[in-house]
Amino acid sequence: MNISTQTMLTDVAAQLSHPDSLQGLFHEHRDGDPLPSQPELAKAMDLCRSMLFPGFYGKSTVNTHNLIYHMGVAMERLYCIMCEQIQAGLCFAAGWSEVEAYGQTYASAQEQRKRKAAQLARAFLQRLPALRQTLATDVEAAYFGDPAAESFGEVISCYPVIKALTNYRVAHELVMLDVPLIPRIITEMAHSETGIDIHPNATIGDHFTIDHGTGVVIGATCIIGSHVKLYQGVTLGAKSFPTDDSGNPIKGIPRHPILEDCVIVYANSTILGRITIGHDAVIGGNIWVTEDVAPGTRIIQHKASHPRG
Amino acid sequence: MNISTQTMLTDVAAQLSHPDSLQGLFHEHRDGDPLPSQPELAKAMDLCRSMLFPGFYGKSTVNTHNLIYHMGVAMERLYCIMCEQIQAGLCFAAGWSEVEAYGQTYASAQEQRKRKAAQLARAFLQRLPALRQTLATDVEAAYFGDPAAESFGEVISCYPVIKALTNYRVAHELVMLDVPLIPRIITEMAHSETGIDIHPNATIGDHFTIDHGTGVVIGATCIIGSHVKLYQGVTLGAKSFPTDDSGNPIKGIPRHPILEDCVIVYANSTILGRITIGHDAVIGGNIWVTEDVAPGTRIIQHKASHPRG
Amino acid sequence: MNISTQTMLTDVAAQLSHPDSLQGLFHEHRDGDPLPSQPELAKAMDLCRSMLFPGFYGKSTVNTHNLIYHMGVAMERLYCIMCEQIQAGLCFAAGWSEVEAYGQTYASAQEQRKRKAAQLARAFLQRLPALRQTLATDVEAAYFGDPAAESFGEVISCYPVIKALTNYRVAHELVMLDVPLIPRIITEMAHSETGIDIHPNATIGDHFTIDHGTGVVIGATCIIGSHVKLYQGVTLGAKSFPTDDSGNPIKGIPRHPILEDCVIVYANSTILGRITIGHDAVIGGNIWVTEDVAPGTRIIQHKASHPRG
Amino acid sequence: MNISTQTMLTDVAAQLSHPDSLQGLFHEHRDGDPLPSQPELAKAMDLCRSMLFPGFYGKSTVNTHNLIYHMGVAMERLYCIMCEQIQAGLCFAAGWSEVEAYGQTYASAQEQRKRKAAQLARAFLQRLPALRQTLATDVEAAYFGDPAAESFGEVISCYPVIKALTNYRVAHELVMLDVPLIPRIITEMAHSETGIDIHPNATIGDHFTIDHGTGVVIGATCIIGSHVKLYQGVTLGAKSFPTDDSGNPIKGIPRHPILEDCVIVYANSTILGRITIGHDAVIGGNIWVTEDVAPGTRIIQHKASHPRG
Amino acid sequence: MNISTQTMLTDVAAQLSHPDSLQGLFHEHRDGDPLPSQPELAKAMDLCRSMLFPGFYGKSTVNTHNLIYHMGVAMERLYCIMCEQIQAGLCFAAGWSEVEAYGQTYASAQEQRKRKAAQLARAFLQRLPALRQTLATDVEAAYFGDPAAESFGEVISCYPVIKALTNYRVAHELVMLDVPLIPRIITEMAHSETGIDIHPNATIGDHFTIDHGTGVVIGATCIIGSHVKLYQGVTLGAKSFPTDDSGNPIKGIPRHPILEDCVIVYANSTILGRITIGHDAVIGGNIWVTEDVAPGTRIIQHKASHPRG
Amino acid sequence: MNISTQTMLTDVAAQLSHPDSLQGLFHEHRDGDPLPSQPELAKAMDLCRSMLFPGFYGKSTVNTHNLIYHMGVAMERLYCIMCEQIQAGLCFAAGWSEVEAYGQTYASAQEQRKRKAAQLARAFLQRLPALRQTLATDVEAAYFGDPAAESFGEVISCYPVIKALTNYRVAHELVMLDVPLIPRIITEMAHSETGIDIHPNATIGDHFTIDHGTGVVIGATCIIGSHVKLYQGVTLGAKSFPTDDSGNPIKGIPRHPILEDCVIVYANSTILGRITIGHDAVIGGNIWVTEDVAPGTRIIQHKASHPRG
Repeated sequence: MNISTQTMLTDVAAQLSHPDSLQGLFHEHRDGDPLPSQPELAKAMDLCRSMLFPGFYGKSTVNTHNLIYHMGVAMERLYCIMCEQIQAGLCFAAGWSEVEAYGQTYASAQEQRKRKAAQLARAFLQRLPALRQTLATDVEAAYFGDPAAESFGEVISCYPVIKALTNYRVAHELVMLDVPLIPRIITEMAHSETGIDIHPNATIGDHFTIDHGTGVVIGATCIIGSHVKLYQGVTLGAKSFPTDDSGNPIKGIPRHPILEDCVIVYANSTILGRITIGHDAVIGGNIWVTEDVAPGTRIIQHKASHPRG
Repeated sequence: MNISTQTMLTDVAAQLSHPDSLQGLFHEHRDGDPLPSQPELAKAMDLCRSMLFPGFYGKSTVNTHNLIYHMGVAMERLYCIMCEQIQAGLCFAAGWSEVEAYGQTYASAQEQRKRKAAQLARAFLQRLPALRQTLATDVEAAYFGDPAAESFGEVISCYPVIKALTNYRVAHELVMLDVPLIPRIITEMAHSETGIDIHPNATIGDHFTIDHGTGVVIGATCIIGSHVKLYQGVTLGAKSFPTDDSGNPIKGIPRHPILEDCVIVYANSTILGRITIGHDAVIGGNIWVTEDVAPGTRIIQHKASHPRG
Repeated sequence: MNISTQTMLTDVAAQLSHPDSLQGLFHEHRDGDPLPSQPELAKAMDLCRSMLFPGFYGKSTVNTHNLIYHMGVAMERLYCIMCEQIQAGLCFAAGWSEVEAYGQTYASAQEQRKRKAAQLARAFLQRLPALRQTLATDVEAAYFGDPAAESFGEVISCYPVIKALTNYRVAHELVMLDVPLIPRIITEMAHSETGIDIHPNATIGDHFTIDHGTGVVIGATCIIGSHVKLYQGVTLGAKSFPTDDSGNPIKGIPRHPILEDCVIVYANSTILGRITIGHDAVIGGNIWVTEDVAPGTRIIQHKASHPRG
Repeated sequence: MNISTQTMLTDVAAQLSHPDSLQGLFHEHRDGDPLPSQPELAKAMDLCRSMLFPGFYGKSTVNTHNLIYHMGVAMERLYCIMCEQIQAGLCFAAGWSEVEAYGQTYASAQEQRKRKAAQLARAFLQRLPALRQTLATDVEAAYFGDPAAESFGEVISCYPVIKALTNYRVAHELVMLDVPLIPRIITEMAHSETGIDIHPNATIGDHFTIDHGTGVVIGATCIIGSHVKLYQGVTLGAKSFPTDDSGNPIKGIPRHPILEDCVIVYANSTILGRITIGHDAVIGGNIWVTEDVAPGTRIIQHKASHPRG
Repeated sequence: MNISTQTMLTDVAAQLSHPDSLQGLFHEHRDGDPLPSQPELAKAMDLCRSMLFPGFYGKSTVNTHNLIYHMGVAMERLYCIMCEQIQAGLCFAAGWSEVEAYGQTYASAQEQRKRKAAQLARAFLQRLPALRQTLATDVEAAYFGDPAAESFGEVISCYPVIKALTNYRVAHELVMLDVPLIPRIITEMAHSETGIDIHPNATIGDHFTIDHGTGVVIGATCIIGSHVKLYQGVTLGAKSFPTDDSGNPIKGIPRHPILEDCVIVYANSTILGRITIGHDAVIGGNIWVTEDVAPGTRIIQHKASHPRG
Repeated sequence: MNISTQTMLTDVAAQLSHPDSLQGLFHEHRDGDPLPSQPELAKAMDLCRSMLFPGFYGKSTVNTHNLIYHMGVAMERLYCIMCEQIQAGLCFAAGWSEVEAYGQTYASAQEQRKRKAAQLARAFLQRLPALRQTLATDVEAAYFGDPAAESFGEVISCYPVIKALTNYRVAHELVMLDVPLIPRIITEMAHSETGIDIHPNATIGDHFTIDHGTGVVIGATCIIGSHVKLYQGVTLGAKSFPTDDSGNPIKGIPRHPILEDCVIVYANSTILGRITIGHDAVIGGNIWVTEDVAPGTRIIQHKASHPRG
């Protein structure tokens, strides 16, 4: 590398390090704070899956005799990772507000967050048995809703909806515990793998399933009942949202649909706004719905035109 | 970790190991059975790609002189992996029906499955040359169908459709040989990477292509002719399916569309049910089609309304 | 492995190595040419991200004091990878046209490409500070456009649109420098991870955002203004394209839409052809648009029918 | 790579593949036989260490509450690896004697070896508790024999003798079970890491220790009592060995020393032949001993000469 | 795995977990304590080497322009690892003495150790420049002492003595700072790789070299002057050591030789006890020395006997 | 990390980067030069072993039918690595003498070295068949010289002497071709693993073996005949070496022993200087030999004294 090249590289490195160019784009790390880590969270999700569906996930050769050993080891590892990652989430959210008092005060805030993280991790782990019960209903729903499914085992091993729902249900438990950032990273991992984008804040009942799944979007304030089924490409989104005086969207306002029990939404339909789709309603494919739908209603698309070939 | 934490972890591990909570969610491993393994199947698909499109896939520096060596080594590795994974699929499907006779009988069933797996692996490998011929027509179709494509090489290296079709065509050969589970894992790997969800049981002719691809769904009983082209977001799905007396869907009934030769379906359209789209028909974008379409027909969406801005 | 199996494997390997079966499907490697490598380009993109958004990406514990060191090391590594990969792209495009004169002439062409690659890599690196400025506007647009976004940090860490746009904006700079193949590999990596398919040749203004993103397609000749927002499933595609006398599509003709400033397109709509969507227009969800839309217009879907439940 | 280079490579590859050049140097693999694998055996030894000295080895965070889980998981993994590796050793020893009857007969011999391997693996595992008791005496001997040792923990973590003896004692158990090849691989792994070369066939009592260790050699027919201590560079070797009519060494004849209880041998001494070093004898450093030494004797080197400096 | 096998495994696991069988062999981990880790220390030593001999170690492509960046990044990583590993050493040494007061008191002792570890890590890092100066004299000594050495570069890259001395000199600095356990792990890593066993407590002057090195032992209380040279197999050991009333060796008593400046010791000689080898003395090969040697003396072995061939 | 810590780290990094502190300790990398790499050379040696002893090394499942494929692929990989590493050695040796003319001249010198490296790599590969023939005699010698050896296979798989000699014989071929640095790295890798230190410049005949091996040293100008056998701890070294006027050792003068055919040297003996050990001589253990030994002579150590116990 000749000298002019080296000088140029040095110069660009300096420009990219200049504080003015970094406003809001630089996450400054503080000594002692763990870092939110997607690989660590991926390990945590693998551990969850190996505990929720033993033998299907995790590479170990589990049987009824040794199951408890595998469970014990996985439990402890999961606890360690969740302690650290939840603490990382708390640090991330705390940001730099304590910056003036850096030093002893920060250290004690750090210690406090560590203890809180351990407490939240414990609360999360205790939810796992209930979480498995709910996921069992999702497996059932996927199996009975798809004539191509050959066994529960195939559904658990292969169906993207099970992967997406496992991540969502884990993330949602963490949302219930007010853990910041981490739930979102967990659902985005599933989004990337399956194309199913469920916001961790959404509320979803049991026996839920999504067929194929790619392109499904479920917004943060959605409320979904039991026995609901969606197909690929379905959006449960916001129509518009109020902005404050500075034109920024106001956070936290209910703006996504409510789907009551036993609703079915076919492929690529878009349901927008805080509307209610009544129980047992069926929404056909490729439709845009922005108003309430009464229970039991069937909505279909207008006929397409057939011009001459 | 203090004692109460440890006690809690132990307690949750015990709950999660309790047989009652594991109905249908636990795949008990049997000594001597290989495990279906996504990483192993990913290696198998990498080997397939390196053999079907040498020089584009596989990190080796292949040229005409050393090609045969690379082919020979890849062939042998692929054979070993396929033997094991096909056997794993057969074991998975066999489940626990032989459980009463565990022991010598199981061992001999195991031995039988191993031999059958080797035989199926051999049959599969012999299909590779024909499979490459078909994929060559798919590469052509992608190249000639996209003005942005700059060379066959770019299509082979970058186009998600080629990745998805390679997995599908490999998986479909395995379906033809009655290999359980494995084909579905292979197509789901491509689904996750490309957003293209082709059921391995579907039948698809040569010169097939999908532009962009994300969100495409092709159901298990679809029959697709030659020279068909789909765009992103197209669903070839089932409208509804008969259920048996217990309300469970009846498996194996034809329920997805037939697309004859030279059909084009534009983005985000949804074609449902056992209908026939005649040869040379063109289906516009964002349409829901549930009835037969005559050969050569052009269908487009109703005009959208333009309310005042 | 018994002898007949071995003979069969050998035989299939020979068939797959036969030149006749390899027309256009074999990329013969030339000694001294680097290979285009997705893993290397993935590393390059990780380095870019760690430099553009320090502390959010890259596993190092960056703070204001050590930032410049990390930047310097990352810069050098990025330079090395880009030199090699750009050279690989140039070799790939050069193909075998110099084959007759293989030997000294080829070696000097090779040397020339190496020098050119280094020069292009330098030009690319110098664009990074400007590229960060544009991405900063995209982060803003994502944050202010989503009531669920809790901080710039969450947007940078989790939002697929930021990952897709970083890849697109890097790839587009390489397109501007006439680097072949490499830009497309970079955008396809993001396509696979996010379901957002942006052609690297497209032109996109600042403050651009895509909500959720799965299924979005932006074609090669699109021109998009500032402050444009798309939702998931939106296609900006070509309606049809002229073919030459042999029926092959003519390359390089403008065939995708122009979106002026401040346009919004809702989920799953499809906009096709070289049409212009005027500034401040709003396109509703699930619509197929193939004609110009005047500035400020609002287009929505026809009402769906509500047959009896 | 130009053509003449390629031709040369091809030619050398052919020469190296020629059967005549491979007499005795080619281990032909048989389908279905596992391969002896140093990495697998290294994993087995890591598992052994993590079970024999929990918390010192193995990266897991073991405590009294979760110890049993870790033990259970490690036990199962160790069992799987040992089954396979012992089978590999049996296959290796069986060689090609069954070659004529290749096919069904070989398959049944293979099956038999697999069952025998499982039985030997079980017998080995049951020896682990006793093996730990003996190793505990070795740890004591190392600690009390070295004024520099600060704790049992330091001895277990850092002292090469503990690593070497763990491998030797494991390997020796396998020798007792007539497992071929595998024991030797295990002791050679320790030889490579510590410079201590103990033949797995040697017999060694409890409270054995070696200080520093590099260069120690303990031959196959050695018999060593309790409370024996060696220093670095000590050889317990064969003086000569009878050959048969063809001049080949006759295998299995006792040819290495017997060291009775409480013998000490200082650095770099060489003790050769089937002689007996009586209990409580002390052999000084740098000495060559080829005759019996009476109990309680102290042998030292002749004074060296001090020529003028 | 049949049931009786499983029962046996479970049973052995239980035996190995029984507290009685674990006396002194179980390192119980405490939540929040880092673990001493050989892989982490190996990374630390790699970082040290890359900073002490830039360009020879570390895989980066360092030149005068980018050196400072690499140094800065390596420095920070080294600091992080050393903080954690020194803390691990302090925890290991603290053992379970604070066990009664487990809880808040332990947490504060833990916090104190963490702060102390950071302070020791800083003190260590500040010694690196001086440490490099001393190692530079060792490189010189190796180069000028070996006619086969072709360049300083070859010595730094290939000579085991440089690897062993780098580890020793780093470990010795940590000994000077009263860091427990960690120094010993560091020198044992070099012992395993080079066969050179230098106790980290030994005191060694500048311009020190060891030719070949395998089998060299340098005891904990050795004092070695400047310009000393040893050959392979040399032991600087203890002759005997006083024991206390219980027969245990008394720790910390000077018991190894003093070598004054410019001493040479040839291969395989053994020097034992707290004796002094005067400056400029030369000790021939294969000799056992247990008494003081006057400055400038030359000692050689008695002539060997030549019996008839 | 607080500010004073950061300042200190920065300060130490600056000191370590200061040119004055780096005299001779800094290997400045030049753009375009490959780096000598121990991991790459380890891969090369693994490839060599897999080609010289197929089935014993390399993890592939080789049999007579697929051997040629494995050989072809290994050959090509070995060629690529050797080209690069030999070039790295040539660059290392070239050092900075061309520094004044940096730029075009350097580039052409670089190109020249690249071509020379390829030519040397080819010459090396062509030596492999002969090299295997010699190693076959070493395997024989080890087998027939050790009553504990159970098969050729065990010798090839486990005996450190075979590992050390393979590295030596490969390295020696490279020395014959005047390749700098690389041969020494290759023999030091074996030294580290086996404790056998053979200088690559030494000349060693066929049927050579070393029992156990730890601590053996064979100097650069040694000449060893056929059928020679050494035991552990044997040194074939230099007694002293002439220095030039500046007191530096004169390089390249013969200074190590000549061992004629059929010599045996027992454990821990030291043979120094340019002396000749006549054919069929036997040197006992723990002896220091500095004068010629007549053919057929047997030398043993003086009797040791037996003071009272």
